[in-house]
Amino acid sequence: MVVIGGGFGGIQAVAGLRKADVEVTLIDRRNFHLFQPLTYQVATGALSSGDVAYPLRAIFKSAENVRVLLADVTGFDLAGREVQLAPTPGVRSGPATVGYDTLIVAAGSSYSYFGHEDWRQYAYEVKTLESALAVRSKILRAFETAELSADPAEREAEMTFVIVGGGPTGVEMAGQIGELAGDTLRQDFRAIDPRQARVILVDGLDRILQTFPASLSAKATRSLRQLGVTTMTGQMVTGVDAEGVTISAKDGSTQRIASRTVIWAAGVTASGLAAQLGELAGAEVDRAGRLTVEADLTIAGHPEVLVLGDMVRVRDGHGTAVTLPGVAPAAIQEGHYAAKLIRDRLDGRGTKPFHYRNKGNVATIGRGRAVVDLKVVRLSGLPAWVVWLVVHLFYLIGFENRIVVLVRWSFSFFTHGRAARVIDDLRALGPGEGLPPEVPANRDGA
Amino acid sequence: MVVIGGGFGGIQAVAGLRKADVEVTLIDRRNFHLFQPLTYQVATGALSSGDVAYPLRAIFKSAENVRVLLADVTGFDLAGREVQLAPTPGVRSGPATVGYDTLIVAAGSSYSYFGHEDWRQYAYEVKTLESALAVRSKILRAFETAELSADPAEREAEMTFVIVGGGPTGVEMAGQIGELAGDTLRQDFRAIDPRQARVILVDGLDRILQTFPASLSAKATRSLRQLGVTTMTGQMVTGVDAEGVTISAKDGSTQRIASRTVIWAAGVTASGLAAQLGELAGAEVDRAGRLTVEADLTIAGHPEVLVLGDMVRVRDGHGTAVTLPGVAPAAIQEGHYAAKLIRDRLDGRGTKPFHYRNKGNVATIGRGRAVVDLKVVRLSGLPAWVVWLVVHLFYLIGFENRIVVLVRWSFSFFTHGRAARVIDDLRALGPGEGLPPEVPANRDGA
Repeated sequence: MVVIGGGFGGIQAVAGLRKADVEVTLIDRRNFHLFQPLTYQVATGALSSGDVAYPLRAIFKSAENVRVLLADVTGFDLAGREVQLAPTPGVRSGPATVGYDTLIVAAGSSYSYFGHEDWRQYAYEVKTLESALAVRSKILRAFETAELSADPAEREAEMTFVIVGGGPTGVEMAGQIGELAGDTLRQDFRAIDPRQARVILVDGLDRILQTFPASLSAKATRSLRQLGVTTMTGQMVTGVDAEGVTISAKDGSTQRIASRTVIWAAGVTASGLAAQLGELAGAEVDRAGRLTVEADLTIAGHPEVLVLGDMVRVRDGHGTAVTLPGVAPAAIQEGHYAAKLIRDRLDGRGTKPFHYRNKGNVATIGRGRAVVDLKVVRLSGLPAWVVWLVVHLFYLIGFENRIVVLVRWSFSFFTHGRAARVIDDLRALGPGEGLPPEVPANRDGA
Repeated sequence: MVVIGGGFGGIQAVAGLRKADVEVTLIDRRNFHLFQPLTYQVATGALSSGDVAYPLRAIFKSAENVRVLLADVTGFDLAGREVQLAPTPGVRSGPATVGYDTLIVAAGSSYSYFGHEDWRQYAYEVKTLESALAVRSKILRAFETAELSADPAEREAEMTFVIVGGGPTGVEMAGQIGELAGDTLRQDFRAIDPRQARVILVDGLDRILQTFPASLSAKATRSLRQLGVTTMTGQMVTGVDAEGVTISAKDGSTQRIASRTVIWAAGVTASGLAAQLGELAGAEVDRAGRLTVEADLTIAGHPEVLVLGDMVRVRDGHGTAVTLPGVAPAAIQEGHYAAKLIRDRLDGRGTKPFHYRNKGNVATIGRGRAVVDLKVVRLSGLPAWVVWLVVHLFYLIGFENRIVVLVRWSFSFFTHGRAARVIDDLRALGPGEGLPPEVPANRDGA
């Protein structure tokens, strides 16, 4: 069988099959599992890339029935039960297809830019490890440029950071940039005062953290304000270019904010593989590109194909397609379920429909600041932050990474520092500088 | 005063002046100090970039008389006492020059490729952090390509690694790749056996580690053999291209080795700033581009300009230009001396000529394997490795980084793992993927 995607859903599914009597091929474009809930910490220099990325091969090295394939999935032949692969750059005689008896697709999502694809070049995401590293260089370089510049307008534009989207990722990025400017970098510069940086969080809805109770949204807004973040809710971003953003209020008034660093954390769209599967199997696909799957995560008419994670909506007991939260626990539970369903099939047992257990919501804002909604109890401030810390350390893969992250966090907590704030954007170096040649991009897919 | 270069020499000089009555501007192209002796560990996935790089601003944040300038030095006006800067990409109104009363230049060196500039695109160095990260992706991708490939010749070329240069860097890289292939990755693949990788260390001289006693060279060769590394001494690389290398023996016979990963660690050339200073001041420059400085590290006729590190040769008591080892301790001692000389001048005191104290030589080969030459005692194997470990941890900047590196090394030692073996080459992603735009290269200079 084949599993596409080494995210939370994919590795959970494979892990659940490592003792089963099946041969599993795990396909991903990257050679590592990314602990996405902490990617924003890489983007702000609190953690290093190796702290949040763990090699897929290392996870499954002792599982002899599991093989990992580094490849880019471009499509499917559902009748022929084959996955189609793009030619891998640099590989002269690689496979073009991989056959399966059972297929699990967990290819995730990306940002949609509200349909304005041209904004993508100006508004940066922090979804992949590479994008987080590039954003880290961009943010740090903004302060460096401001320090060098003799032009007040240029300084101000460099020291203005706009974050679009008031969900957990937007809130976390805004809080971290606020902390970076107001605390970590406080003493670092001579010509500028980083505390004068403007950090602006924009959301079209009336409050941030919509998935949390209103009381916690209010507390988060207050915490952000203490970190110097201005929250602009009920305002839409209607333009993004190289010089800044245009923001429109509901009354139709617009304003222009000069900013050289715009972070995009709004509007998710499912992997293009969801739409492809929908077309091939005649299944429903919603506006965000999510495929509707049955209550057992299979595609209707294709019991051999399971799709999961934030690229799907799942039918409930009444046949209604439900969008589950696009968070790690949902993907983990679905991956766990998919593995169990396959094991049950091997044993000739039936499997109950998938049921999502919402264990709660957690978002961190800064050092000692977080909000936690555990349904039975709502926490904010330091207690919430401790819960956040323990939960994230627990789910982080690799005992070594747990210790390293704990060490880094402990130091940050007490010293207010961020050791990993290095500008090491490889793309800044030209060809022929003793660097291996760049490998062309693998676009989309798993 | 101005200090060019945030390497070992430069930061030592600045550190020695943080309490002196001078205003110091430290100029570097990068925002971090790189702990270069461990860069090869980043290139082989044992350490993460943040573990060996420390922000320059963080080092000097509490030194109010020190400012850090992120810029690329292109030249000097010795009469006008000005340093010339390249326009920084992205900065519209940055400074073009910086004035000085005293100038310290510590801009280091790069690899020379024996004058074959066209080899640079095929033979990768591990000198900068960026190059180490790119080499890490290249090495890991070689195994991935071999795993995917159906062509035995392609597999073999991908699994052949040639390291050119038998100095400490070449030996360390060869040992690390040997360990990676024979140990860390042992269980990671299904189609290939990484233990069958060929790792070849080539040097034109008759033994590796020329700066060590012959007995330690022999021990290092034996240790390398145990890690699966073939040492080819007395053989010159006479050709490098995309398909491999050509190696010529002294008897004129040549052989061709098909290899897709060639690491260059031979033939160092001084920063171009050394030749510029030589021309401007009429001072001697040797074939490797190194400037000759007086016994007090100043340029003859320019007592206000000190030059140090592996971009210079220093006159001894007899006026003979001496090449000191291009290692961190030499640069540190020179930086320390330069700061003392300036403090002495401020206090109206004279300063004795610089005297290099060689405290010994150390090179590591692998887990528990190293050679140490402390003059009074020669060590190899585990005792040498422990000395190497303690020395490197001691010199590593940042208490947090010391702990993190210690944690990572402890885990590697006991688990034989390398957590940081992620392929995250930013250049592999195309433009318009939500990444900040690339900033054009700053070439050469500090």
